[in-house]
Amino acid sequence: MIQDIIIYDLIIIGGGPAGIAAGIYAARKKLKTLLIARDFIGQAGKAVVVDNYPGIEEISGAELMGKFKKHLEKFEIDIREGKPVREIRKEEGVFEVTIPKENKYLAKAVIIASGRDPRPLKVLGEKEFLGKGVSYCATCDGILFKGKTVAVIGGGNAGFYSALELAKYCPKVYIFEGGEVVRADEIVQEMVRKTGKTEVICNVEISEIRGRDFVSSLIYKNRASGKIGEIPVKGIIIEIGSIPATSFVKDLVDFTERGEIRIDLRTGATKTLGLFAAGDVTEVRDKQIIIAAAEGTKALLSAYNYLQAL
Amino acid sequence: MIQDIIIYDLIIIGGGPAGIAAGIYAARKKLKTLLIARDFIGQAGKAVVVDNYPGIEEISGAELMGKFKKHLEKFEIDIREGKPVREIRKEEGVFEVTIPKENKYLAKAVIIASGRDPRPLKVLGEKEFLGKGVSYCATCDGILFKGKTVAVIGGGNAGFYSALELAKYCPKVYIFEGGEVVRADEIVQEMVRKTGKTEVICNVEISEIRGRDFVSSLIYKNRASGKIGEIPVKGIIIEIGSIPATSFVKDLVDFTERGEIRIDLRTGATKTLGLFAAGDVTEVRDKQIIIAAAEGTKALLSAYNYLQAL
Repeated sequence: MIQDIIIYDLIIIGGGPAGIAAGIYAARKKLKTLLIARDFIGQAGKAVVVDNYPGIEEISGAELMGKFKKHLEKFEIDIREGKPVREIRKEEGVFEVTIPKENKYLAKAVIIASGRDPRPLKVLGEKEFLGKGVSYCATCDGILFKGKTVAVIGGGNAGFYSALELAKYCPKVYIFEGGEVVRADEIVQEMVRKTGKTEVICNVEISEIRGRDFVSSLIYKNRASGKIGEIPVKGIIIEIGSIPATSFVKDLVDFTERGEIRIDLRTGATKTLGLFAAGDVTEVRDKQIIIAAAEGTKALLSAYNYLQAL
Repeated sequence: MIQDIIIYDLIIIGGGPAGIAAGIYAARKKLKTLLIARDFIGQAGKAVVVDNYPGIEEISGAELMGKFKKHLEKFEIDIREGKPVREIRKEEGVFEVTIPKENKYLAKAVIIASGRDPRPLKVLGEKEFLGKGVSYCATCDGILFKGKTVAVIGGGNAGFYSALELAKYCPKVYIFEGGEVVRADEIVQEMVRKTGKTEVICNVEISEIRGRDFVSSLIYKNRASGKIGEIPVKGIIIEIGSIPATSFVKDLVDFTERGEIRIDLRTGATKTLGLFAAGDVTEVRDKQIIIAAAEGTKALLSAYNYLQAL
């Protein structure tokens, strides 16, 4: 039995802004490219509103990712969607990218643009009630809590946008923030205040999520007074940030103490020749859609130069 | 006579993708911001087609810049359009930005995003026939050459896109390239070839532009054979790259040997506290719209942190 083995010029891992931008540029450079994406949603696709991607005035994250994907599909590029990558290795100058229960895919160069996963709260009840009142995405799951009192954990932009979304159909939305003040942009805080349905509770530590079959309340401790409180809620959206999605890559790259992939900021190169990384999975400071897309572009242009010189 | 003196939080110099992205983010952060732009066209606005700005499938550079500007104007921000900046100084912790024949504008922080100007050929006849057959922008001026034989100087993407534009209404378009081969992406070369109206001439040095009242011919020398040629053309589009627009900034920043502003790649900071730079005016390697917009965003987020800490 003879099996054709394709060796791609490039495999891109990730279907967020960084991966898609890299894919668009790769196709324009006529690289034989495979893009592997668990999904085309990622952190960006979960955003309730994006109004800071220059050139597109106001759009939901899901719609923006739809536009990104459609743009990518205009070009000639192989896409493998639906499964995460399990492992990436380099053998005799060729990268092997493994997807569970499938063959390996081979390539001369790889760009890791796998983005980030939501950061868990790590409190009692969180895992137990996941999908039963606990969610990491207001856009995706918020509507399930229609007419009910809900809580958002996290007072950054993501948390406030989630509260804004929830306030459309929930009578009461609590926003819990661990720090002494919330961190959302003033403009976003204003919009949330105007709904008249939100209440911000700062300087607290969430200690437990309670319920029977579904979430029924949230237990928290005031950091200043030490006082314990319990608030009845039927839904909890956790928006306390994210962690880089790097489980499939081991000693081929170096990591920062935050677990982000170290790169040459000019080129996106990692410590392994031919292996690049881009976007929110890397040490690049600002996690923004426009920046991730640009980093994907940079990494692709570097990968292209690398391939030309082979 | 009492004059109110406004001290802005931030002045942004430049109306291209980097400046506009910085402006959008500044407004969202509620910084009191003035954006000074000679125009909202820049290098990006001259592009015949942009099909690699993720999320917007295919658009002219002019239309894309229109979208960028409209997006910016949605927010609260002062805009001063039409004149270039002449000088920028820092006096006692405050930046003074001078526009010819106007008052100075003051700010606590400045982002330079002034982009680039077209690189001149520096040959006989170039200055003389500027606007009389010589142009640096096919999108802007190409239509003036309708029905005529024209030449594009430069075999990169910009040159090929210009040729593509010109081939719509010109019977014959020469593309001159100084190197031994052209540098445009394969996909762009293909599109140009398909018009059947173009002829590529490589490995030549342009030596003179001739004419009476208007351009009538182009003189060039073959680098290999040394042979001189003359081709009758009525229009010449020069697309041989660009130079950073930095005439107004002197010792506040360091420059690379290419005349680009040196920055901290992570933050966009220059050597002067409170002074940032972003986009094609800087040493950032890849000159792409998506990258310039991201660099503007990065610089703004750094400027914001700087202002918060004042």
